[in-house]
Amino acid sequence: MKLKELREQVCEANLELDRRKIVVHTWGNVSGIDREKGYIVIKPSGVSYDKLTPDKLVVVNLADGKVIEGDLNPSTDTKTHLVLYRAFPTIGGVTHTHSAYAVAWAQARKEIPCFGTTHADYCHGAVPLTQPLTAEEVAADYEGNTGEAIVRRLGNENPLAKPMVLVAGHGPFTWGKNAPDSVLNAVFLEEIARIATTTVMLAPNAGPVEEYVSEYHYQRKHGPGAWYGQKKG
Amino acid sequence: MKLKELREQVCEANLELDRRKIVVHTWGNVSGIDREKGYIVIKPSGVSYDKLTPDKLVVVNLADGKVIEGDLNPSTDTKTHLVLYRAFPTIGGVTHTHSAYAVAWAQARKEIPCFGTTHADYCHGAVPLTQPLTAEEVAADYEGNTGEAIVRRLGNENPLAKPMVLVAGHGPFTWGKNAPDSVLNAVFLEEIARIATTTVMLAPNAGPVEEYVSEYHYQRKHGPGAWYGQKKG
Amino acid sequence: MKLKELREQVCEANLELDRRKIVVHTWGNVSGIDREKGYIVIKPSGVSYDKLTPDKLVVVNLADGKVIEGDLNPSTDTKTHLVLYRAFPTIGGVTHTHSAYAVAWAQARKEIPCFGTTHADYCHGAVPLTQPLTAEEVAADYEGNTGEAIVRRLGNENPLAKPMVLVAGHGPFTWGKNAPDSVLNAVFLEEIARIATTTVMLAPNAGPVEEYVSEYHYQRKHGPGAWYGQKKG
Amino acid sequence: MKLKELREQVCEANLELDRRKIVVHTWGNVSGIDREKGYIVIKPSGVSYDKLTPDKLVVVNLADGKVIEGDLNPSTDTKTHLVLYRAFPTIGGVTHTHSAYAVAWAQARKEIPCFGTTHADYCHGAVPLTQPLTAEEVAADYEGNTGEAIVRRLGNENPLAKPMVLVAGHGPFTWGKNAPDSVLNAVFLEEIARIATTTVMLAPNAGPVEEYVSEYHYQRKHGPGAWYGQKKG
Repeated sequence: MKLKELREQVCEANLELDRRKIVVHTWGNVSGIDREKGYIVIKPSGVSYDKLTPDKLVVVNLADGKVIEGDLNPSTDTKTHLVLYRAFPTIGGVTHTHSAYAVAWAQARKEIPCFGTTHADYCHGAVPLTQPLTAEEVAADYEGNTGEAIVRRLGNENPLAKPMVLVAGHGPFTWGKNAPDSVLNAVFLEEIARIATTTVMLAPNAGPVEEYVSEYHYQRKHGPGAWYGQKKG
Repeated sequence: MKLKELREQVCEANLELDRRKIVVHTWGNVSGIDREKGYIVIKPSGVSYDKLTPDKLVVVNLADGKVIEGDLNPSTDTKTHLVLYRAFPTIGGVTHTHSAYAVAWAQARKEIPCFGTTHADYCHGAVPLTQPLTAEEVAADYEGNTGEAIVRRLGNENPLAKPMVLVAGHGPFTWGKNAPDSVLNAVFLEEIARIATTTVMLAPNAGPVEEYVSEYHYQRKHGPGAWYGQKKG
Repeated sequence: MKLKELREQVCEANLELDRRKIVVHTWGNVSGIDREKGYIVIKPSGVSYDKLTPDKLVVVNLADGKVIEGDLNPSTDTKTHLVLYRAFPTIGGVTHTHSAYAVAWAQARKEIPCFGTTHADYCHGAVPLTQPLTAEEVAADYEGNTGEAIVRRLGNENPLAKPMVLVAGHGPFTWGKNAPDSVLNAVFLEEIARIATTTVMLAPNAGPVEEYVSEYHYQRKHGPGAWYGQKKG
Repeated sequence: MKLKELREQVCEANLELDRRKIVVHTWGNVSGIDREKGYIVIKPSGVSYDKLTPDKLVVVNLADGKVIEGDLNPSTDTKTHLVLYRAFPTIGGVTHTHSAYAVAWAQARKEIPCFGTTHADYCHGAVPLTQPLTAEEVAADYEGNTGEAIVRRLGNENPLAKPMVLVAGHGPFTWGKNAPDSVLNAVFLEEIARIATTTVMLAPNAGPVEEYVSEYHYQRKHGPGAWYGQKKG
């Protein structure tokens, strides 16, 4: 993909965040990567969605975080994105939002159990929650260490099977095979979090759905022989 | 009704799901049946609503589930639809969604009691909840057995008087005399579930409305001498 | 006001219900009265808002409920409206909805305490709740007796100071000096009910706002020397 | 800034309240100040947003509250705005709304703890709650004393670091460096209050985010060397 196309795709993905109404004001950022050339394209910091155009996006070097192209400052969360791209070589896009229900679970410091098939269709198992950062980690490199906390929490799990996380006291990060896919996962996480909130209000002791059901749903969509959609199994 | 018209009606019903904002992304599917010719028309799997046109719908044989017409794969939930059409000869349309409040009750594994007249106007008695499937049922034929669990739960009740069900850990299925009617029942179920959620939050011990009131409301709209609307009693 | 204008005003008021998004489908009806000529104009039964035009409204005699003009059946709630117009001579419009939060309080069978100034601005004291109807009242004249239950509950209170009520297990009725005013009160009641729901979730033992504050707010807007808005005090 | 421009900016800020859907009907008002000339421009009382134009705004003298220009009555909350402008010399705009979640916290009479970074980005520490007014304060000068209660509650805090307050039993006031900024703070407060509501429902004993995290976020956006956005640090 040429840089021009990547700029357009990432710009469109940022605007989609706004259209899906899961961000307020400038609260969110999306990036996409070109693995061959070793750079990412990311939203500039604090620019509102109605003024965002592909040429305003910032190109940042994957290896050292230096700005390669662009007059504006990149998102203050850029370092977090970079850590994720370096740790998860299969992902192509990252999204950060402050969507209300996902943030509430992050503030409540609770993982979201897999209560049903809606969840199972998009995330394998519970939506994980990071450990809080220490004062030292915040002082030394807050954004970078936020990424490290996510990577530690994911551990050996396949990031494309668990494409979402809650940063304790902060909010969600999601990723995917490219920028638009990471935005869809942000939308799905918010809906999953919203439904889970109502679930625990109706049944405080609700448990996860039977594992053979969630496993079936996940495999139907994402397993090696997935038969959901129009892909050839 | 000609196939062309049925395609248009079912396509329009699928789009109505999206317009009523009770589905996110591609999460939902609607079908309609031609009882004389013995086939159903259903949404293709994983196609987003903004790309759905009547010619993309898939025609499936009622008797054996084979695709009669259409290049795309039918919804992965097709087998569930077929089981319902076979068991309930009076219904003409089926809708499945992941609408948030209905899913939350399904995840909380609770029936929705008939708390008031809004509910009574559209569903005779509580909105029922299926038994969970066993691991064997999931392994053998998940979608077909989901339909069977619904049929078992409905038992001897009139499916047009109780046109909605919650599948435990999964979400709602609704039906009606045709596809648009099944969509309306999905919309009504979501609103009923939303109001019921607030009701139990305000009064955890709330009980159903007096049966003579719910019966009166139901008969006013759906009984043999119904006088609601513009039909002649 | 001429009949043509009253038809237009009441039609517009019904459409406003839909635009304010406090009704789903056909769930609501608004009427207006011409006291001099002794008739009311009301929504026809079960007609959806996108097909409603002034000429489709039904004119009904105040004294005996007979249809004076119109080919369609009037709302099934017409008798309730008539009882209210007869008992409250100062009101000029009546609205009935199934708006979600107001219905939830009606289903929870709880009055809405005056928790704050938002409430006090539009309703003097708690939003009252009717007693449930008996089986005999339902069998004899459900809609008329619903009106009687409201009138009994209001007692000696000024209906323009308390322009809203919750019918137990059913939902809200509101009224005002004319049809548009009754719709505004339905909108305000829904917002009051929504805020009150969150209030009791945050503070289950929340009490009403100090009476000298609610009284001040109510008088500022509706008292004899009201100075809110652009009316001359 | 010329009066004409201030009128346009304040009018636009009032309309933004409506567009952001945090006000119902006429429930809200925004003002802006010209410190040099010593007057404020404020919304007229009880005028709906679809009829609001810059020339309908009212110009009021900061020193004595007299109307300098305008045929309409200024907002009944004008005195509260004036007290805030006099006490907080660094602010340039004030907004009052009855947005649902902020009002619910005000009615529940609870401060909103700083549960996470979404909050920390816009308000330094908890969103404060005023003491209730006494009957004497209400009788003597309700609107003026509402302002005084806010000022007392803010105490020595920097009003631009804590640009929001909940008036007990009433609702929120927010401010900022100008009118549009005060509206943004009203939007942010509503979102903060909404997320905080879900947080306490999920975790009734949730505590504030670690102070070194909230402090970091606040300084990143608003501290002396802020590096968020496109301003030069």
